[in-house]
Amino acid sequence: MISSSSLAADLLEEIYGEGARQCPSPNEQLTLVFSKYKSFDLVELEQLLETAGWSRRPVRRVRRALDNSLLKVGLWCHHSRCPRLIGFARCTGDGILEATVWDVVIHPVYQGSGLGKQLMNYLLESLRKMGVESVTLFADPGVIEFYQRQGWELEPRGHRCAFWYAN
Amino acid sequence: MISSSSLAADLLEEIYGEGARQCPSPNEQLTLVFSKYKSFDLVELEQLLETAGWSRRPVRRVRRALDNSLLKVGLWCHHSRCPRLIGFARCTGDGILEATVWDVVIHPVYQGSGLGKQLMNYLLESLRKMGVESVTLFADPGVIEFYQRQGWELEPRGHRCAFWYAN
Repeated sequence: MISSSSLAADLLEEIYGEGARQCPSPNEQLTLVFSKYKSFDLVELEQLLETAGWSRRPVRRVRRALDNSLLKVGLWCHHSRCPRLIGFARCTGDGILEATVWDVVIHPVYQGSGLGKQLMNYLLESLRKMGVESVTLFADPGVIEFYQRQGWELEPRGHRCAFWYAN
Repeated sequence: MISSSSLAADLLEEIYGEGARQCPSPNEQLTLVFSKYKSFDLVELEQLLETAGWSRRPVRRVRRALDNSLLKVGLWCHHSRCPRLIGFARCTGDGILEATVWDVVIHPVYQGSGLGKQLMNYLLESLRKMGVESVTLFADPGVIEFYQRQGWELEPRGHRCAFWYAN
């Protein structure tokens, strides 16, 4: 990780909202920023999620889901007028006992440089500040090791996950 | 299941709130009711959860967690002045794409009569009415079969659950 040119703290908050933080960048040409409050272009978000293999969902439903999420984290490639979204994760939960992580993605072009790990650290730190005790997620087979390396416990005390689909 | 004395629809909603529904009872002496809106005595709720082996949690934190939950379902043993809470479950979620079920309990005295299954049916029907697509939960080893028998899919497509604890 190379520390790229740093953004002034006031500019950072002006563009990316309270609690935004610069992310160590793998490329000194890129200034990367984590944000909890910068709003998303939903088409850009769904395109990003598609690059990770998620299937496209109706924008109207995604908007409602985001509105009702406990926390949304964006990783932005900084540009003063037009920042690009290159990473994302969101949580649902009660904000105190439980939170559950969904839709974790880093754009494939930016993968392999530890950005996913930093995104998760930023997200967990935000949840910790809220006072959340326990965070859960459902990991695809391909990313189970990614989470285990970061200290996530797989199926503690024999817990298994179960899914029910409306359709 | 015996159909116990039925409550008039207006009385049912007056005491237990909109969408309340009488539950087929295993004992004709007992009138049982599902409710989404009747408020909980948090000490009574925590005592109920303790009977299922959950450890006691600070009431202040439980109150916040309930306030931020998407859905809370109570199973009540009807009494016109003082209904008793004998079952409970709650969900977090975004109300449209995802919901996650927590704290499912039936008082041990009332177990073994299919009330848990009926509680889950009432909960899932409520989520379906909201338009939620997918519901998830983390099952203890002792209840995995209970959920499988009701059509829950265990770890679809190799999903595994992972937990992270703040402390």
